[in-house]
Amino acid sequence: MTPLPPRTVIEYRDGVVRFIDQRFLPGKVKIVETDDYRVIARAIRSLAIRGAPLIGVAAAFAVAALARKKAGRPDARKRIATAIELLRQTRPTAVNLFTALDSMLESLKVSIDSELVENIKNAAISIHEDDRQRCDRIAEAGLPLIPANARIVTICNTGFLATAGIGTALGVITKAFDAGRVSEVFALETRPLLQGARLTAWELVQSKIPSTLLVDGAAGSLLRRGGIDLAIIGADRIAVNGDTANKIGSLQLALACSKFKVPFYVAAPFTTVDPGTSSGRQIKIEERPATEVIRLGSKTTAAPGVGVYNPAFDLVDADLISGFITDRGIFMPPYNFTST
Amino acid sequence: MTPLPPRTVIEYRDGVVRFIDQRFLPGKVKIVETDDYRVIARAIRSLAIRGAPLIGVAAAFAVAALARKKAGRPDARKRIATAIELLRQTRPTAVNLFTALDSMLESLKVSIDSELVENIKNAAISIHEDDRQRCDRIAEAGLPLIPANARIVTICNTGFLATAGIGTALGVITKAFDAGRVSEVFALETRPLLQGARLTAWELVQSKIPSTLLVDGAAGSLLRRGGIDLAIIGADRIAVNGDTANKIGSLQLALACSKFKVPFYVAAPFTTVDPGTSSGRQIKIEERPATEVIRLGSKTTAAPGVGVYNPAFDLVDADLISGFITDRGIFMPPYNFTST
Repeated sequence: MTPLPPRTVIEYRDGVVRFIDQRFLPGKVKIVETDDYRVIARAIRSLAIRGAPLIGVAAAFAVAALARKKAGRPDARKRIATAIELLRQTRPTAVNLFTALDSMLESLKVSIDSELVENIKNAAISIHEDDRQRCDRIAEAGLPLIPANARIVTICNTGFLATAGIGTALGVITKAFDAGRVSEVFALETRPLLQGARLTAWELVQSKIPSTLLVDGAAGSLLRRGGIDLAIIGADRIAVNGDTANKIGSLQLALACSKFKVPFYVAAPFTTVDPGTSSGRQIKIEERPATEVIRLGSKTTAAPGVGVYNPAFDLVDADLISGFITDRGIFMPPYNFTST
Repeated sequence: MTPLPPRTVIEYRDGVVRFIDQRFLPGKVKIVETDDYRVIARAIRSLAIRGAPLIGVAAAFAVAALARKKAGRPDARKRIATAIELLRQTRPTAVNLFTALDSMLESLKVSIDSELVENIKNAAISIHEDDRQRCDRIAEAGLPLIPANARIVTICNTGFLATAGIGTALGVITKAFDAGRVSEVFALETRPLLQGARLTAWELVQSKIPSTLLVDGAAGSLLRRGGIDLAIIGADRIAVNGDTANKIGSLQLALACSKFKVPFYVAAPFTTVDPGTSSGRQIKIEERPATEVIRLGSKTTAAPGVGVYNPAFDLVDADLISGFITDRGIFMPPYNFTST
């Protein structure tokens, strides 16, 4: 099977969806090619496709593929509606999935038969394209913050494997690299699920960006050694006052940056700001299963009988954040996202 | 085979050395029983026996076992001297190994034939006993710092698996638990080699101390959640001004403690202070092989082609340390270890 274009993790063409099954990364770039929406549904459920924006795009492409396959059949509308409902059940949290499927359902309702396949395809492509462009705008906004020969540290995976475009934090980095400004990227491995080691390192190697992996606990040591120009991370939720929820480990990276006076930026779509959350104290932190910490693959690495504290997200205080890089431009402190 | 006494990782009795092969922890408590110094040498080399003080004790016991086996033979002295030289080659760094073997060699030289076996045994037992007592004195010194129902966080392994006694940082915790003062211990897993998950969690479970494991990046989250009374860590080297080298990840724990105003203590034998090192800047940080970060057992977890930064040790600035707990008592800031 021919590879996907560089920095592409999903595409839709002529009724066929092709995507990277991320469960096999970094060992193997397994590309799945399917016109069956149920294969996509299983891929989302099993984390073969992950990253909130990417899940929405994948679900939309699944519906488009089905619409084309059922074109002209009397039961086409009913089949498509059923598929949309099934896709809705795959993951509970990411809002992008529901937004995308709502858009597909709308398209199904308003289209006359002769335009159904084309309209649904266009709606799916526009979801993909919107996210791609949002990533580009974030990356464009961030470019002026990156000095020449920049050495940048990041955490978790925020690149093309998590979005429909070049990514958020890693998108800024990639864009700056393409502009000749980045000399090296340091990826924290991001325990417990190792998204930094498995996914970000893989993306960096794919993009031929000189890259170095380190354990999360070594961030302070790296910054003390010197030569790091800035940190950029993504965000899962941003409070109105700028407090930011992101992958566990983010706070300690921010504290180390603060100690060694290294600028620390958050890159995210502006939609990540939650107007209903005034400060970080209101953000409930999800705790995840113990197995993520005490097992790696099939191997148990920790002593049986020990309890586990496994928060999925960290809270970074606004006063530790040098600026926000968004598709609406850069925001510098003091932050008050209600007034924008 | 009967188990070793609780909190015991090595013992010598009637010419036989028994020890826990730590490579099998936490999955299996494999006890090895041997009167062959070459088995001990291999155990040290392969990290079946690890922890600087423990290595010294093991080497001394190996010599004692050989002396007893060769008792009365004409070639006994020659054989013992050869064994001492072989044991010296097992590990390059830990000073305890050389100190212990020097002591055994001295014993060999000064003893008359009829007292040789007994003197060598006594020298070995005294090395074991000295370290055991030093641990006890550290733990005793630390006790007044532990409040009632203490919840304590630590990193790496500093307990009975690393010493001949109850340990340093973990020794303080164990002693305080036995005195009824500890309600819960939080162990950072300590990437890359997972000494926290594999060894410390196992020790805590063995000692029936309520214990919770977390990834290194979650320390800040844990301290923000509240209810943690103090942190205690060990030390690999202490500079005259109090700057302390310890396992990678220690600095970030110290920074998080500083942010959330949680006392942060270092527990170590006073011999860890290096009078030749005036500040942390003079401490050279060892970088270890990339494989420790990118492989876990036989599984490669990171993307091929990525570089690795793998410092074994971290530097904790003296101003982040609330106090030192040593076998010579507690030292509070400002630190100036030359004048003691």
